[in-house]
Amino acid sequence: MNKIIVFQTDFGLDDGAISAMEGVSYQVSYDLNIRHLTHNIPQYNIFDASYRLYQAIDYWPEETTFVSVVDPGVGSARKSIVAKTKTNMYVVTPDNGTLTHIEKHIGIEEVREIEEKSNRLKDSELSYTFHGRDVYAYTAARLASETITFEEVGPKINVEDIVKLELYGCQKIENGISGYIDILDVRFGSLWTSIPYKDFVDCGFKIGDDILVEIYHNDRRVYSNRINYGKSFADVEINEPIIYMNSVYDMALAINQGDFSKAYGIGVGKQWKITMTK
Amino acid sequence: MNKIIVFQTDFGLDDGAISAMEGVSYQVSYDLNIRHLTHNIPQYNIFDASYRLYQAIDYWPEETTFVSVVDPGVGSARKSIVAKTKTNMYVVTPDNGTLTHIEKHIGIEEVREIEEKSNRLKDSELSYTFHGRDVYAYTAARLASETITFEEVGPKINVEDIVKLELYGCQKIENGISGYIDILDVRFGSLWTSIPYKDFVDCGFKIGDDILVEIYHNDRRVYSNRINYGKSFADVEINEPIIYMNSVYDMALAINQGDFSKAYGIGVGKQWKITMTK
Amino acid sequence: MNKIIVFQTDFGLDDGAISAMEGVSYQVSYDLNIRHLTHNIPQYNIFDASYRLYQAIDYWPEETTFVSVVDPGVGSARKSIVAKTKTNMYVVTPDNGTLTHIEKHIGIEEVREIEEKSNRLKDSELSYTFHGRDVYAYTAARLASETITFEEVGPKINVEDIVKLELYGCQKIENGISGYIDILDVRFGSLWTSIPYKDFVDCGFKIGDDILVEIYHNDRRVYSNRINYGKSFADVEINEPIIYMNSVYDMALAINQGDFSKAYGIGVGKQWKITMTK
Repeated sequence: MNKIIVFQTDFGLDDGAISAMEGVSYQVSYDLNIRHLTHNIPQYNIFDASYRLYQAIDYWPEETTFVSVVDPGVGSARKSIVAKTKTNMYVVTPDNGTLTHIEKHIGIEEVREIEEKSNRLKDSELSYTFHGRDVYAYTAARLASETITFEEVGPKINVEDIVKLELYGCQKIENGISGYIDILDVRFGSLWTSIPYKDFVDCGFKIGDDILVEIYHNDRRVYSNRINYGKSFADVEINEPIIYMNSVYDMALAINQGDFSKAYGIGVGKQWKITMTK
Repeated sequence: MNKIIVFQTDFGLDDGAISAMEGVSYQVSYDLNIRHLTHNIPQYNIFDASYRLYQAIDYWPEETTFVSVVDPGVGSARKSIVAKTKTNMYVVTPDNGTLTHIEKHIGIEEVREIEEKSNRLKDSELSYTFHGRDVYAYTAARLASETITFEEVGPKINVEDIVKLELYGCQKIENGISGYIDILDVRFGSLWTSIPYKDFVDCGFKIGDDILVEIYHNDRRVYSNRINYGKSFADVEINEPIIYMNSVYDMALAINQGDFSKAYGIGVGKQWKITMTK
Repeated sequence: MNKIIVFQTDFGLDDGAISAMEGVSYQVSYDLNIRHLTHNIPQYNIFDASYRLYQAIDYWPEETTFVSVVDPGVGSARKSIVAKTKTNMYVVTPDNGTLTHIEKHIGIEEVREIEEKSNRLKDSELSYTFHGRDVYAYTAARLASETITFEEVGPKINVEDIVKLELYGCQKIENGISGYIDILDVRFGSLWTSIPYKDFVDCGFKIGDDILVEIYHNDRRVYSNRINYGKSFADVEINEPIIYMNSVYDMALAINQGDFSKAYGIGVGKQWKITMTK
């Protein structure tokens, strides 16, 4: 193990929760290098948690331990698990769909259920609402510091049995392709679609093409415009829209130095369908 | 000393202030492990600073050095101090009430006033508005790195002389207990009360009970409802309220996957009284 | 090199972008100490990026490597550079004006253009919109870990050829001085002006003086009041305004425990002129 732990939650950074998780980890071992992916996952949004993990995980060294706690079912019967990816990363998380994107795009080698009897912060048995601190941070720290082995996390469970969310994907249509708005590049309001670059170029689109983009909210068309397909924002004028390949190699829409989502009131999820045609 | 410093302020993370504090610390020693509790304490809110410190401190290894700078009196005659807790932690802070919860719940062993003549960043004498950088971060780094001893911080002052805020506490009433809304679990809008779990169960309340909750704003009743007392959010339906024990072992109110504070316009502080009765 | 890297961007902390940058860096070397200045630079605001770097850089140990990515021109022909300051710091950044304040106040020793052929994350050639990850974090990590030398970054370019923004400065006027509102102390709403402390006191102003402050928006006077010049906020009553020297040794205006910018609707930039006269 490389002693790096990367935390992700929907807890925000306004109180002492993340600090308690860090402290528990450093009580296990001073040698850990604790990092933070984001703590601003929208509350209870497991899809976004799954997506953000997938967005970052490939860039870390092998044997990094991730902890993702977006856990609307805390205290329920949902399992606590540790997954080992095919790329030799570890993810500590409730079994609630957080591993969806990783399972699909990267692959999971093995999953173990956390046995709480041996993997729970001492004297925390009364606490039912903060598994992030009492179980997940504690277990991640013990795993990353090699205090326990992966096997000592708990019994193996079948990879195919873990909870998975529905992914929207894309499909070829006449003269183009259709998909969904998966998520925003929040800060800049760009729309990240479920259309992979590879499927997009398979339609014959080329840099410089003006492509007909139509966006539907529950079958009602809310946007229709020809947009230039460019390499990067600077390929169009300021305030002009652009189609581009984003940093996870899916197709995306932006307004150069503007905010596409706000400008046209476009949201994310399966209600938001997009087509790109010639 | 374990070389860990944990910073807390009300400075936010939008400018270079926290980075300057970190830089000053690393100039003292490269070996420090600098962590952050939160920098989003509401501006000038010493009560919250005191509470958040208390929320996190017990989870850190012994000999961790905390720095809390919520300092409306910067540049005034208020003292700068370092407290050593009975649990062998150190807290560097203005003497303005920031140690209130720690003093009450954990205990303070010894307090020393920072002698600025020897414990101030070189050439910063002209600067009157950023003690966080010039005095607190600098002194914490020198203490945590063992450049100075606790004694070299400055002269001892009496523990009972440090500034303390009023804590609201709770009291037994007929058929139940009353207290105040101390603070929010900001991200989820849950109400954290001043009623300890121990006092609550002493009233005879049991998991599964429907308890009459009444909330008053300055003696005006603004909320009245029977709420189920459960272990964790998942014990009630989505959008249902729940009474539970929070992660600092006080009683709290939440709406499962909702926001209690926003839903009913409930705030924090001594104007917000709560009763729980059979 | 001291192995410290300090990241600054306008990416926010809501997604996986910063984590990907950290991961790339740790893939280069586990020994790095990665810190964060701020990721909340207002989108595309190069002036603020330049200012925040300048606000923090002097407090860090020599040979610290800074990475600043506020890059509206990503994917355009703008250069990617590494500057070495006269104080022996390194800054990795697009050549778009981000070095303006450092060049003026600290001085730049040498600038090299990043040769992307040798200094780009492997297999990232298809990615045009995330130079922060693919080029800047990667190059900074290789430089800070001494995997490459400063010379191996790429060819030297002339310091005087780098892009610089206009700085507003200040000028002596009858009975006082005039300048501009450069930036806010965002969290507290204080106005930080372009008037250095030294130029201010050269006008003969002394602690305790009541100084006539006038603020103009595009030549329209929007604020006029006599304000006391004090050392720190506590020198005036709560909710009273004060003139003081800020932590970068320029003159500033605050309301003690209030928000000057919000109270009077004052903004930043060259449209916002301020005069201080006897």
